[in-house]
Amino acid sequence: MINKIISKYKATLDNFKGGELKCHCLTKPVIVEIKGQSAHNHACGCSKCWKPDGALFSQVAVISKDNLKVTNNESKLTVIDDSATIKRFACKRCGVHMYGRIDNTEHPFFGLDFIHTELSTQKSWSAPTFAAFVSSIIETGTKPEDMDAIRQQLTSQGLAPYDCLSPVLMDVIATHIASH
Amino acid sequence: MINKIISKYKATLDNFKGGELKCHCLTKPVIVEIKGQSAHNHACGCSKCWKPDGALFSQVAVISKDNLKVTNNESKLTVIDDSATIKRFACKRCGVHMYGRIDNTEHPFFGLDFIHTELSTQKSWSAPTFAAFVSSIIETGTKPEDMDAIRQQLTSQGLAPYDCLSPVLMDVIATHIASH
Repeated sequence: MINKIISKYKATLDNFKGGELKCHCLTKPVIVEIKGQSAHNHACGCSKCWKPDGALFSQVAVISKDNLKVTNNESKLTVIDDSATIKRFACKRCGVHMYGRIDNTEHPFFGLDFIHTELSTQKSWSAPTFAAFVSSIIETGTKPEDMDAIRQQLTSQGLAPYDCLSPVLMDVIATHIASH
Repeated sequence: MINKIISKYKATLDNFKGGELKCHCLTKPVIVEIKGQSAHNHACGCSKCWKPDGALFSQVAVISKDNLKVTNNESKLTVIDDSATIKRFACKRCGVHMYGRIDNTEHPFFGLDFIHTELSTQKSWSAPTFAAFVSSIIETGTKPEDMDAIRQQLTSQGLAPYDCLSPVLMDVIATHIASH
């Protein structure tokens, strides 16, 4: 029933120095260089996130936008939806999303870029710790009757399932709203 | 630290026939008559819901809009925010929200009215079974550092805390989106 919930996790390494993300093009791939370790890595079921073939969830983490640099073939990147809160920069050829950026300086997550750590050959990015927007996978074709088993599987893999973000991040957002 | 999470629950009664909701005015109260039992009752922390004095959460349930009738002093009602998805009909004098209605026929919850069961003198409405929009109470003044204790207290009272709606209802919404 469930072929693939999420790509195999990578282990977190404390002194990890960062690495590269690469799109799926065999020639002239877009390459993004990331300095330092990622944070808040999680499985994401939202309908806007790019996902590996056959996966119900992507892996999404954040890093400071100042620690992200497109080093190769930047001209192949295009913004998927200019009106979205998170502008997703995707490869025009293979469709892979290379990073997401927030332009709104008032947004609680402004300053952070969103990256899919499974696009890296390095193995030591921060591991996913929860699953977000789980119910949204129904929007992209998962049968509602499969959801109980999927939430159980996520839980058994140590990924507490949430239909929004995790309580920690939801509290961050609410705190930001309260202070503005 | 936490004075009052939610009003004391009422027990569910299987053959409950419904009852009345009354605003807080001592004279000429608005009275709303409800036929039959409520459903999906929950504690709600959202910033738009009316809450009893000193309570962090309201109790909100749904009933078919065809089973709701304003029987007394309807002229005292006003819509709090005409642009909101749920139009909340409140007493102009005491401020209590008597019911919420959705006009958008495409909305997954169209046809259901939202009511605060603690406005009733009847004691047998369906009891709350979860807590929704928990992180939102930070927006209205709760300290972020109190949230762990509040989530623990909700859990110990049998109200699983969610920062959106419950998985059951989130799946209903996603299923609706998928089919439109």
